[in-house]
Amino acid sequence: MSRMTVALKESVRPAVLTIAGSDSSGGAGIQADLKTFTALGCYGSSVITALTAQNTTGVQGVHPCPPEFVKQQLQSILDDIELKAIKTGMLHDASIVHVTAETLKAYYGASIPPLVVDPVCVSTSGHTLLQSEAVATMVSELFPLAALITPNKSEAELLLSHCGSPSKLESVEDMLPAAKTLLSTGCKAVLLKGGHITATMSEVKRISADHPEIQIVREGLLGGNMEILQISEEDPSSKALVIDVLQEADSTTLFVRPRVESKSTHGTGCTLSSALACALGRGKDFIEATRSATVYIHLGIETADPIGQGHGPLNHMHPIVIRSVPQPTPSVPHPLTRILIDSCRETWKAYVEHEFVKQLGQGTLAKECFLHFIKQDYLYLRYYARAYALLAAKSSTFSSIQAATATIITVINEVTMHRAYCAQWGITEDELKATPESPATTAYGAFILDTGLQGDASRLVMALVACLLGYGEVGLWLKKEAARPDSWVKLENNPYRKWIDDYSGEDYQKAVKLGLDAIEAMAVADPPSPVRFQEWQSTWERCVRLEQGFWDMSMGLL
Amino acid sequence: MSRMTVALKESVRPAVLTIAGSDSSGGAGIQADLKTFTALGCYGSSVITALTAQNTTGVQGVHPCPPEFVKQQLQSILDDIELKAIKTGMLHDASIVHVTAETLKAYYGASIPPLVVDPVCVSTSGHTLLQSEAVATMVSELFPLAALITPNKSEAELLLSHCGSPSKLESVEDMLPAAKTLLSTGCKAVLLKGGHITATMSEVKRISADHPEIQIVREGLLGGNMEILQISEEDPSSKALVIDVLQEADSTTLFVRPRVESKSTHGTGCTLSSALACALGRGKDFIEATRSATVYIHLGIETADPIGQGHGPLNHMHPIVIRSVPQPTPSVPHPLTRILIDSCRETWKAYVEHEFVKQLGQGTLAKECFLHFIKQDYLYLRYYARAYALLAAKSSTFSSIQAATATIITVINEVTMHRAYCAQWGITEDELKATPESPATTAYGAFILDTGLQGDASRLVMALVACLLGYGEVGLWLKKEAARPDSWVKLENNPYRKWIDDYSGEDYQKAVKLGLDAIEAMAVADPPSPVRFQEWQSTWERCVRLEQGFWDMSMGLL
Repeated sequence: MSRMTVALKESVRPAVLTIAGSDSSGGAGIQADLKTFTALGCYGSSVITALTAQNTTGVQGVHPCPPEFVKQQLQSILDDIELKAIKTGMLHDASIVHVTAETLKAYYGASIPPLVVDPVCVSTSGHTLLQSEAVATMVSELFPLAALITPNKSEAELLLSHCGSPSKLESVEDMLPAAKTLLSTGCKAVLLKGGHITATMSEVKRISADHPEIQIVREGLLGGNMEILQISEEDPSSKALVIDVLQEADSTTLFVRPRVESKSTHGTGCTLSSALACALGRGKDFIEATRSATVYIHLGIETADPIGQGHGPLNHMHPIVIRSVPQPTPSVPHPLTRILIDSCRETWKAYVEHEFVKQLGQGTLAKECFLHFIKQDYLYLRYYARAYALLAAKSSTFSSIQAATATIITVINEVTMHRAYCAQWGITEDELKATPESPATTAYGAFILDTGLQGDASRLVMALVACLLGYGEVGLWLKKEAARPDSWVKLENNPYRKWIDDYSGEDYQKAVKLGLDAIEAMAVADPPSPVRFQEWQSTWERCVRLEQGFWDMSMGLL
Repeated sequence: MSRMTVALKESVRPAVLTIAGSDSSGGAGIQADLKTFTALGCYGSSVITALTAQNTTGVQGVHPCPPEFVKQQLQSILDDIELKAIKTGMLHDASIVHVTAETLKAYYGASIPPLVVDPVCVSTSGHTLLQSEAVATMVSELFPLAALITPNKSEAELLLSHCGSPSKLESVEDMLPAAKTLLSTGCKAVLLKGGHITATMSEVKRISADHPEIQIVREGLLGGNMEILQISEEDPSSKALVIDVLQEADSTTLFVRPRVESKSTHGTGCTLSSALACALGRGKDFIEATRSATVYIHLGIETADPIGQGHGPLNHMHPIVIRSVPQPTPSVPHPLTRILIDSCRETWKAYVEHEFVKQLGQGTLAKECFLHFIKQDYLYLRYYARAYALLAAKSSTFSSIQAATATIITVINEVTMHRAYCAQWGITEDELKATPESPATTAYGAFILDTGLQGDASRLVMALVACLLGYGEVGLWLKKEAARPDSWVKLENNPYRKWIDDYSGEDYQKAVKLGLDAIEAMAVADPPSPVRFQEWQSTWERCVRLEQGFWDMSMGLL
C-alpha cells in the first residue's frame, strides 16, 4: 500500500505557463518549453508573444502578436487554470512586456506564483528578439514580479548598462558583482549564466579562497573518493568549465560543471528557464531548482540527436522511459492480465478449453485419467506450496510474508480435497504418496522453483499466477457453459461435479481476485522496463504451456 | 550487448510536424500535438496557422496568422528538417489551406511523407475554426496529398454535403458508405470517428453478419477466455460503445471500444491525429496506427487530472515513466556509480579512508590486526565466491554465466595471496581454516547471499560491487597519496606493500573497470523504476556499511 501512495504522489502534475515566442523548428521558444514541461511531468500552457519562422540555421522571419491578443491569451489562462509557476521568454517589444507585467500584477497582486524571467534579447544566431526600448520596461515592470531572472553574458551586459553599471563580463570574477547589481532590479534572485565565459578549476579555487562564504555546487565533476572513476574517465577538473552564478538576497552559489562542446545548443536558455519553472513550481528552493535544471539541459545537450543542418536542439526527452504496461483505468482495471492473456491467446485457450476440461464438464472423462491427474496434481501442489514458501522467503515485509504463507495454507487445504477424491475412488494416502512423478509434473514444478531462484519476487509471482488464474478460468467457463439451455456441460450426476463447484466457487474465485489485484498492483508500484516486462511475459507463457502439457499428460496416460 | 541494441533502436526519434492553431490553455492545437509527439518519443516541430485565446470553457478569441507567414514557417522547417510524418489541424481559412497544400506539393512532389489531415472545422465548444469557403480548398488541394483524413461526425457531414452526397450520420451503418464516399476525395484512407455516435455490440454483430469482409478490432473489451476478468469488471459489451471506421482502398476496419463518460475530452481530435502521425512516421500501417492512437487517447481521457473549470484536457503523459538513473554521456560515463557513491558519501569515505587503511599505508598497522583481517577476509571470500556462483545460477545467458564464473576463479586466486601472507607470517593453512568467523564477517557474507536469495541478478550484483569497487578505491587512493612529496604513505619497507600493489595494480583495476561497466550497462538495458532503484541504492549502502564494520572489527580485535 505504501508503494501505491508513493506512485500517486509522483503523478501530481503542477500546471505551469510559458509566455514566449514560437520557434517553428521546435527546438526553442514555447515548443522547447512545452517539451520540457512534459518531460518533467508538468502540465504546460502557453501565451505566444510572436511567431518566428526559424530553423537550426537561423531566424528567417518574425511575426509579432498584437499586445492586446497577448493579454487575451494570458487572461484566458489565468481565468481558468491554477498555475504553480510561470516563465517568460521572448517578449518582443515594450508593449508586450508591459501588457504581460500589467496583466500578471492585476490578477495576482503580491501573491504571484514563482515567475522566471529569461530576458531574451538576441538569438544565438544574432537575430534581435527584444527591441531595445523594451529593456527598460522589462527591468522596471517585470523584474520586480520575478522570483528569478536568468540572463546570459550578453543579456547581463545589456542590463548592466541599463542599470548604470556598464561592465564587460570576461570571467567568473566579473560575474560576481554583476549578479549583485542585477539583484537590485527587484527580483528575488539572479541566475547569471556563464555559458559564454570559459572558466577553470583554478579560478574556482581562487574564488573559494577569497570568498569562503560562497557555496560551490559541483555537477558532472568527480567528487572525492572517486579514484576508480578518475582513471577510467577523462579528468574534467583540468579542463574548461562552465560556471553559473546564483545570487540570492543573502547568499551566492556557484554551479560548476565541465564545458561540453556540442552543436546541439539551440534553445538551451528557453529550456533552462522552463526547467527552473518546473522545479520552483514543485516547491524546490533556488539552489535545488538550479541544480536540477542545469543537469537537465546538460544531459539534453549531451544526448541530443543531430537534427537540422545548423545548431540543433537539445534532447528534451532524456528523462523519459516509455511504460510497458498501461496504467489501470475504470474501463480497463486489469491491463497487465489482459496483455498477458492476449500475448499468448491461442496457448491460453488451448489450456483453459483443453479436451480434458471438456470431457470433465461432460462427465465423460475416464476415471483413470482423472485419478492420474489428481495424483500428479497432488505432487505438483507440493512444488507449488514450496514456491510460495520461497516467495515468503523473498519478501521484504511482514504483510507479503503473511500473504504468501496464507496461500500455502490454502494449497494444503486443496490437497485435502485431493485426498478425499482418492479415498472416494479407493486410493489410499500411501498409494498417493508413492505415485511416480510424471515428467510434465517435474517440468512445471521445477520450472516455477527455478524461476524463483533466478529472478525476484515479481517474476516468481508471474510463474505462480498462470495456475491460479487458469483453474479459476476453467471453473467459471464450465459453470457458464452449464447454465446455457441444452448445454454440453452436465452437472447432474457428473462424477467430477465437486471439482467444478470447487474451482468456480466463491472461495477459489476470491483467491483469483486477490491474485489479479496483486499482479496489477505490482506493475503500478514498480513499472517494469521493456526488458523486465519481457521476462514476465515469457515466464507467464512458459507456465501456460506447462499447464497445457499437464493436461496432455493426464489424457495421454489413460 | 543485444539488450543495448534494443535500447538504442527504441531511442530513434522520428521528426514530425504539426500545422495547426495554437491553444493557449495547452490542451488542444499545436500544444496537444507537441505533448503527444514528446510522450510518444517523436521530435516535434510546428507551423502555427492561428493563435487562439482559449481555455477549457471555450474560445475567447482567434488571431489568424498571415498566409505568407504560414508559408515562411513551413519553408523554414522543410529546408532544414527531414520529416517522417506531418499532420494538419485547424487551418482557419482558404488562403492558409491553399498555401499549406501548395508549399507541401512544391517541396515534396509525389513523395510526401504520411500526411494526416484532421479537418478541424468547429471546436467542441462550438467556435468556428475553419471558414466555410475553406472546405472546398481543403478537399480539392489538401486531401489528395493526405495519407489519412480524420473527420468526426459533424465534419464528415459537412464534407459529404460538399461532395454532393449530403447525409446525416446517426449510426455506424450510416458511417460505412460515408467513409467510402469520403475516400473518393483522393486521400489514401479515411478514419471516420464515431465519438459522437453511440453504438452497441448488437450493431457490431449485425454489421459483422451483413459484411463478413469487415475486420473488427476490439480494444478495451474483454476477449474470449477472460471469465475471471468478466466477473470482477463491469461488462462493457452490454454498454454503449464508440466505433471508428477506417476505410482504405480495399478494406474496411471497425475499431470498437467502450464509451467512457468524461469531462476531459478537450483536444481529443488534435491528439488522435498527432498520435496517428507518430505511428505512421514509425512505419506502422493504418490499422496498427489507428489501434495504437485510439488506445493512447482513450487512456489519456481516463487518466486525466481535472484541469480548468470546463472540458479539461486529456492526460498526454500517461505512457511516460521518469528515469531513475540518467543515461551515460561522454562527460558523465558512470552516472549510476556516481549516484551510488554520492547517496552515502560519508559512509563511503569512512570505508575507503578507514583508520585501518591509513595505518596500512603508513606501514604502522599492528601485525595482529592485519593477520586478523586477512583471516577474516579469507572466510569472507568464501561467501563472496559462493555469491558469484549464485549469480551464475541466476544468469540466463552463457556469457553472464561465464563472467560470474571468471570472477569465482579470480577470487580463488585472491585467496592464494591470503595464504601467502599467512605463510609469510608463520600461519599455516590449517590454522587459517580453523579461524572462528567474526560476526562482522558473517553479517556481510550472509547479507550478500540473502540479497541473492531475495532479489534478481541485478540486486545481487549491487551487493557484490561495494567490495570490488571499494578495494579498488583504497588501492588507488593509497597509490596516489604515496606519489605526493613527503607523503604520509610509506611504500618502502612497508610490510603491507604487496597488498597495496595488488589492489592498485593493473589486474585488479581491470576487474574494477569491468564491474563499473557492468552495472552502468545494467541500468541502461533495464532502467530501474524508482522502487527498484531504491532497492539497489539501499543494498549498496548496506554493503558499504558492512565493509566499514569489517575494518572496525579488524582494528578492534587487536
